[in-house]
Amino acid sequence: MIPNMSKSYKITKYKNGQLEELDDMVVTEFPLTVFINNKEFATMVCTPTHFEEMVIGFLASEGVIRFRDEIKSMSIDEGRGYAYIDLFTEVTTSQQYYSKRFIGSCCGKSRQFYFHNDARTAKTSTATTTVTPAQCIQLMKLMQEGSLVFQETGGVHNAALCTPDEIIVSRTDIGRHNALDKLYGYSLLNRISVRDKIIVFSGRISSEVLVKAAKIGVGIVLSKSAPTDLAIKLADDLNITAVGFIRGSSFNVYSHPERIVQG
Amino acid sequence: MIPNMSKSYKITKYKNGQLEELDDMVVTEFPLTVFINNKEFATMVCTPTHFEEMVIGFLASEGVIRFRDEIKSMSIDEGRGYAYIDLFTEVTTSQQYYSKRFIGSCCGKSRQFYFHNDARTAKTSTATTTVTPAQCIQLMKLMQEGSLVFQETGGVHNAALCTPDEIIVSRTDIGRHNALDKLYGYSLLNRISVRDKIIVFSGRISSEVLVKAAKIGVGIVLSKSAPTDLAIKLADDLNITAVGFIRGSSFNVYSHPERIVQG
Repeated sequence: MIPNMSKSYKITKYKNGQLEELDDMVVTEFPLTVFINNKEFATMVCTPTHFEEMVIGFLASEGVIRFRDEIKSMSIDEGRGYAYIDLFTEVTTSQQYYSKRFIGSCCGKSRQFYFHNDARTAKTSTATTTVTPAQCIQLMKLMQEGSLVFQETGGVHNAALCTPDEIIVSRTDIGRHNALDKLYGYSLLNRISVRDKIIVFSGRISSEVLVKAAKIGVGIVLSKSAPTDLAIKLADDLNITAVGFIRGSSFNVYSHPERIVQG
Repeated sequence: MIPNMSKSYKITKYKNGQLEELDDMVVTEFPLTVFINNKEFATMVCTPTHFEEMVIGFLASEGVIRFRDEIKSMSIDEGRGYAYIDLFTEVTTSQQYYSKRFIGSCCGKSRQFYFHNDARTAKTSTATTTVTPAQCIQLMKLMQEGSLVFQETGGVHNAALCTPDEIIVSRTDIGRHNALDKLYGYSLLNRISVRDKIIVFSGRISSEVLVKAAKIGVGIVLSKSAPTDLAIKLADDLNITAVGFIRGSSFNVYSHPERIVQG
């Protein structure tokens, strides 16, 4: 068991027609409130690991920072669930658009973004990386096998930053966004070039997940689950290869299949 | 196929070692921006059905309204994805706390809420309803069998408001919250007494899901998935019976097992 990620609880199990008390593992959920320059910014509900990565990835996703160096200081009060970030600059005006609807000038012809900050920060991929079907299946298998918490509690999402051949880093969280933010923060903290990398993800490819992958900067997203139509439109537009339903020895490619090549 | 809930897409499928093009169903994702008294309030990303129920349930969840009658008028522009709500009153001051962290006066001894509006609107259940193990299993089976979209696309959550014997109403959404908001809106629009009812849910019981069930007012939540530790603490505190992992002929009871009685 990984510390902090799950806890033992006394539950009542119904099985074979009987109710009985026993101990079982339950996944932990932790609220972390982020203050920027002493002002409350947002509360993230998360699996309490890799706070620094998560907060940095979150601020980058929201367009508040672009690089690690923009943060003057950062402290995390794990007991009370507060993260304090001081930036070198005042918070930019883009924050007034935080989760505000983006209204395109030309209805139906502009991009599919619906939030201001996304239109500003999501990048069209220029990645030329390719991956074979066998690599897609193998990366998903590696990530899922590596997640002890999922096997114990069934209640978390996994996300991994990978090359076609191996996992660089894998993160776990009850929140799909947080798992991706942890990867984003890891890549910023360690100055990893992400353009040629792949994100492997256990959850559904919603528009928000796809946009987050574009912000991180990868060209390929591999998922165990389904995409949405809006995510496919965004993936088409942002030149991202979206692969879903990687299960057993099959999967579906929903956009830019040119990056999936037989070995 | 239910109109608007999924669409056909041309995809590339990898199976038996071959890549081939074919048509497949993909779940729809739709951004709806809610304006209250002409001011932008929030953008919901949803499955585009039952807009009125969803918006009313969302406003009630957020503590903006308590009853349907507080809404003067409501219009939905489906083409542009806007919902306009006029209230009889000015928006209450509680909105300044929208998604703001709740800081209890007594650290560790107060309730587990972390948002202001939740502490204000979630109710401790006084329900005396009980349910048998066979009813738990049967309600989950009925709900899942009734969801065509899930079977087609694998990408949605289902939620149903039930008596111990049958489903009253079932709603589907790509967003776990939206599915519950649609139930909440349905119960407000149809003036259904929810105290003695049960919520059946396909997704994980997170703290947010548990708090939403408390706001709706039910005493029993049945889920196919796992709960979190924070959700169990809230369920203990709010006198709600939380049941998870209803699969095949077994399940786990995480709180207040006194409402689960052998028939």
